Amino acid sequence: MLTTEENELVTRTGPGTPMGEVMRRYWMPAALSSELPEPDCPPVRVKLLGENLVAFRDTSGKIGLVNEFCAHRRASLFLGRNEEGGLRCVYHGWKYDVRGNCLDTPTEPAESSLKDKIHLKAYLTLEMGGLIWAYMGPQEKTPPAPKFEFTQVAESHRYMTKTWEECNWLQGLEGAIDSQHASFLHRALTSDKTRSRFGQSASGYRARSLTPSHEVEATNYGLLFASVRPLGEEGDYVRVYHFVMPFYSLRAAQMGIGGEVKRPLVAGHMWVPMDNENCMVYDWIYSFGETPVDAKWRDEFEWGSGRGPEDRTADFRKTRNKTNNWMIDRKAQKTLGYSGIEGINTQDHAIQESMGPIVDRSHEHLGASDKAIIATRRMLLEAARSIGQGADPPGSGPEYYNLRAIDKVLPAGAHWQQELESEIYGAPKYA
Amino acid sequence: MLTTEENELVTRTGPGTPMGEVMRRYWMPAALSSELPEPDCPPVRVKLLGENLVAFRDTSGKIGLVNEFCAHRRASLFLGRNEEGGLRCVYHGWKYDVRGNCLDTPTEPAESSLKDKIHLKAYLTLEMGGLIWAYMGPQEKTPPAPKFEFTQVAESHRYMTKTWEECNWLQGLEGAIDSQHASFLHRALTSDKTRSRFGQSASGYRARSLTPSHEVEATNYGLLFASVRPLGEEGDYVRVYHFVMPFYSLRAAQMGIGGEVKRPLVAGHMWVPMDNENCMVYDWIYSFGETPVDAKWRDEFEWGSGRGPEDRTADFRKTRNKTNNWMIDRKAQKTLGYSGIEGINTQDHAIQESMGPIVDRSHEHLGASDKAIIATRRMLLEAARSIGQGADPPGSGPEYYNLRAIDKVLPAGAHWQQELESEIYGAPKYA
Amino acid sequence: MLTTEENELVTRTGPGTPMGEVMRRYWMPAALSSELPEPDCPPVRVKLLGENLVAFRDTSGKIGLVNEFCAHRRASLFLGRNEEGGLRCVYHGWKYDVRGNCLDTPTEPAESSLKDKIHLKAYLTLEMGGLIWAYMGPQEKTPPAPKFEFTQVAESHRYMTKTWEECNWLQGLEGAIDSQHASFLHRALTSDKTRSRFGQSASGYRARSLTPSHEVEATNYGLLFASVRPLGEEGDYVRVYHFVMPFYSLRAAQMGIGGEVKRPLVAGHMWVPMDNENCMVYDWIYSFGETPVDAKWRDEFEWGSGRGPEDRTADFRKTRNKTNNWMIDRKAQKTLGYSGIEGINTQDHAIQESMGPIVDRSHEHLGASDKAIIATRRMLLEAARSIGQGADPPGSGPEYYNLRAIDKVLPAGAHWQQELESEIYGAPKYA
Repeated sequence: MLTTEENELVTRTGPGTPMGEVMRRYWMPAALSSELPEPDCPPVRVKLLGENLVAFRDTSGKIGLVNEFCAHRRASLFLGRNEEGGLRCVYHGWKYDVRGNCLDTPTEPAESSLKDKIHLKAYLTLEMGGLIWAYMGPQEKTPPAPKFEFTQVAESHRYMTKTWEECNWLQGLEGAIDSQHASFLHRALTSDKTRSRFGQSASGYRARSLTPSHEVEATNYGLLFASVRPLGEEGDYVRVYHFVMPFYSLRAAQMGIGGEVKRPLVAGHMWVPMDNENCMVYDWIYSFGETPVDAKWRDEFEWGSGRGPEDRTADFRKTRNKTNNWMIDRKAQKTLGYSGIEGINTQDHAIQESMGPIVDRSHEHLGASDKAIIATRRMLLEAARSIGQGADPPGSGPEYYNLRAIDKVLPAGAHWQQELESEIYGAPKYA
Repeated sequence: MLTTEENELVTRTGPGTPMGEVMRRYWMPAALSSELPEPDCPPVRVKLLGENLVAFRDTSGKIGLVNEFCAHRRASLFLGRNEEGGLRCVYHGWKYDVRGNCLDTPTEPAESSLKDKIHLKAYLTLEMGGLIWAYMGPQEKTPPAPKFEFTQVAESHRYMTKTWEECNWLQGLEGAIDSQHASFLHRALTSDKTRSRFGQSASGYRARSLTPSHEVEATNYGLLFASVRPLGEEGDYVRVYHFVMPFYSLRAAQMGIGGEVKRPLVAGHMWVPMDNENCMVYDWIYSFGETPVDAKWRDEFEWGSGRGPEDRTADFRKTRNKTNNWMIDRKAQKTLGYSGIEGINTQDHAIQESMGPIVDRSHEHLGASDKAIIATRRMLLEAARSIGQGADPPGSGPEYYNLRAIDKVLPAGAHWQQELESEIYGAPKYA
Repeated sequence: MLTTEENELVTRTGPGTPMGEVMRRYWMPAALSSELPEPDCPPVRVKLLGENLVAFRDTSGKIGLVNEFCAHRRASLFLGRNEEGGLRCVYHGWKYDVRGNCLDTPTEPAESSLKDKIHLKAYLTLEMGGLIWAYMGPQEKTPPAPKFEFTQVAESHRYMTKTWEECNWLQGLEGAIDSQHASFLHRALTSDKTRSRFGQSASGYRARSLTPSHEVEATNYGLLFASVRPLGEEGDYVRVYHFVMPFYSLRAAQMGIGGEVKRPLVAGHMWVPMDNENCMVYDWIYSFGETPVDAKWRDEFEWGSGRGPEDRTADFRKTRNKTNNWMIDRKAQKTLGYSGIEGINTQDHAIQESMGPIVDRSHEHLGASDKAIIATRRMLLEAARSIGQGADPPGSGPEYYNLRAIDKVLPAGAHWQQELESEIYGAPKYA
């Protein structure tokens, strides 16, 4: 549990909040690249850390991420015209470039120099790994580009999506850090693979050992944690995760959802605060081997999320959502999957949204199995408390970009940290 | 009228409020029995006096009514699995029995004794008369089971429904106590019986005498009140109602909606606060004679409510509601019924919801005809003011369970209290 | 820009606010006459300056505008029966005349004089020009009836509509005062007249000169402003507007939307505050010549608004609204009209609603082209500041009822005030 004050401190990320200052020291995803598919395409609204922004791709392909409201009379630039090197407000034609400089104020007299004094708040952006990234912190603290393996592999080797989750970002992150819930929330009750949207196959290593041991290590980038499941003579099934500050989860996925297939796959998530009661979840898989992410893996990933094309709305909200109780099917809950809700990710969203917009952690009762969650909160709180004293938050350097999440069967009782070290830090470093 | 402070005091029922403490000293309906039709059926959400709860029927048929949120990480137990003697959270499998004891924490190490320290807030329940009842007050003050006649007659002799009303509970209760509105709000403008959903027949005793005298008596359980309508040579039509603390209305219904048919029927209502701006109305009829409540009476009751199966949503909200102006039909208002709204109960909800979520009683102007309302408020306020000094609220003993509501034509000028006493207290007492 | 305090002062109009007191010193439209089409027709809800009212037309045709809630128990009189000289509450039959006098309390004893003490708040009304007007200020300050030319021409010469706009009234008014936005927001990108719902034809005088000069003059009724567009040898195209306190815009429309047709037309608007975050916009055109407003002009006006019968809901809300991004068509924005939104008026509503419910004017950056807006705000603020000292707000006398809005091509460099004076004040004065 947290005190009410700690809960407030760790969950709020708006301008001026300590946790908001921490978040503003990292590159954060603002949109999918595919939301701005070509030069001069329509702008999109972006809500990030409580700020209303609009993103656009200009004529030369550069990305702008600026205050949603025109500096003149505060009309929304979402309605704007994206043309000839800038975004133009449709009210009076004021035009801005990707840096927020005002290029034109056509209603002003020809001799006017007003535009030279007008600057729209604009954030640094870069495009990498299928994402548009933003940096909202002080310029002198700008971190190097987020060259994680998932942003650097070829496009063919990555599949990236996003979904709106209607609760505070930390509820989402805590779901990823807590690897044990998978044995419950995501459990399949049938071996019928055609119903796999309701749960993970019961035949995998994870299902075979319901009470894994959990080990957590604080690192310079966040936390390294592992679940170790004894499989008897076969050895120990070790699954390594990374929590990377401030909201990343990297998750070993070589075993597949069913636990049967070997493939060079890592899955990742980011829970990016839109405001205090909403976050945008970026979900991806990537292949670190030769095999690209093919349609089969992609479909499994999407269906595992409970989503076909019909299941996500134009603004990335879920069709299965709080207002319809995530379409829980009580009969399926008895026979097909533990939760009765379709889709692994939808199950996570359902349980996290069911707690309310911001869960009251002062009423929790944590156990031995919550070590990773406790450690994560401690690190987040420490970052929030020390940022005001000039401390840099952990993991804001490039030294963790070679992280990889690994799962493997090791000899029983093996020292997994030693055995796996070269693989855990095995991703290439990109210059 | 009330002062603003009195209005606040008498309407608010959340935890820690004086009126909330009064309410918590009675058995209150939490759900229909039919919402939990069998052992291990899906749990249901219950909102009661501002508290978020979940109700379930366990494997042995016992009813649990517990905090909606798991003690572990606060996931909603509405999503839970109801199985093998308890309700299990789908997040990590923690399991609770109907008393809120934690039976299992499967993610914890085998030797863990954590579960022994975990208790979920749980309320006493009992099942009686087609309802699941809850007691939310101090244990030593638990009243005897609510053995009113309507809970004790055979199932064949009772019909029970519920409907969500979108305003404070007291607006609903005051509608029932105020017997005069029936001559206006519920008046039929046509004798065409096929249009009876729009109003009570104009041929009944009530319609024949628009200005009855009203008499109110404070009792040990609440109020006894009567309307006396002189019918000339035929005598006086006397209709006795009970207001039973804290939110019951018992209403004589022998004359039927049209006033023509004699039958051994009583109608009752409870306005149970969900929160300050919503209440759940339980409506029932029962027969205290040999004749069961047959389909005809049931239909008349349902259609009188303006409801067929199509008129109530899955969460007991009304299809005819505030957002659509209760589907008022202005042409029907000229020709068929006084309000132009279909259904006696819907008419009541419409007028009560039209006042706003919590009516501002400091702007009222009450008249001689509002005696019963004034007396009811006085009793409620007195209970709210004295509960903090250790006083027991009125009617929290079993001595009123033999109440019956009666209507009868008596000789003109008869002393109705004497004439009807044996019938008013005529219901059998159940051990 | 305004300070936060000034913005608050000028936008808030509820009871007791300074700007609200200013507004209450003018006749204001409460409803279209056609909303109350005949004696004893159904009452309608009216939200005006934050007050909940109900309007009705009694048996003799007189208009009442009274508090929405019955003085007895506060049931909504919107549900009331409008019959035999008054509006009757359907709860207990209390009845009110158009002055708010209580005519009947039928549930009270026959000898009761209660009704003589009951008065419902009622406002002065009059009916003129297709509108029901209300006066909500002190009786001794009642201004003469609003005999503007548009209220006095024959019904055949006027077309009047209204639309709900979901933002503060001042955002709407400022759009009208700012004549330059027309060259941007309303610009057509095609000369295809069949697509004119997307923008004004590019062939008009306004389009030919994108940077008109703007002149503003404070007057006794508000502001007179003009845009002067040099057309070269042809002369200057001068377009005169009036801002009439507190929320009128009169706009020259002789040139038509396309700028080609000459016709004796003036267009007008009022932005009438419903509450701080909503206003009702009354839009009209009228002919001051012999030609009536025929179907062609009417259609052009309605289609120009982006509205056919399908585009406005029963409560005058827009089908194209904030929740659906005003159905912006990004392809049309590239090819048909500057905004990609159908309908001139809908374009205005879109841009004004896009600013949020009450725009934060402390973040604006105004330029030379915002003279008229600055002058308007100054006048409004001055009125709000001085009303508490007993000053009468400007334009509350009848001397401005002969105003007309004119557009004309004058010889290049002509002194438009002199040339147009007789036409600007050219409307007849009505006794």
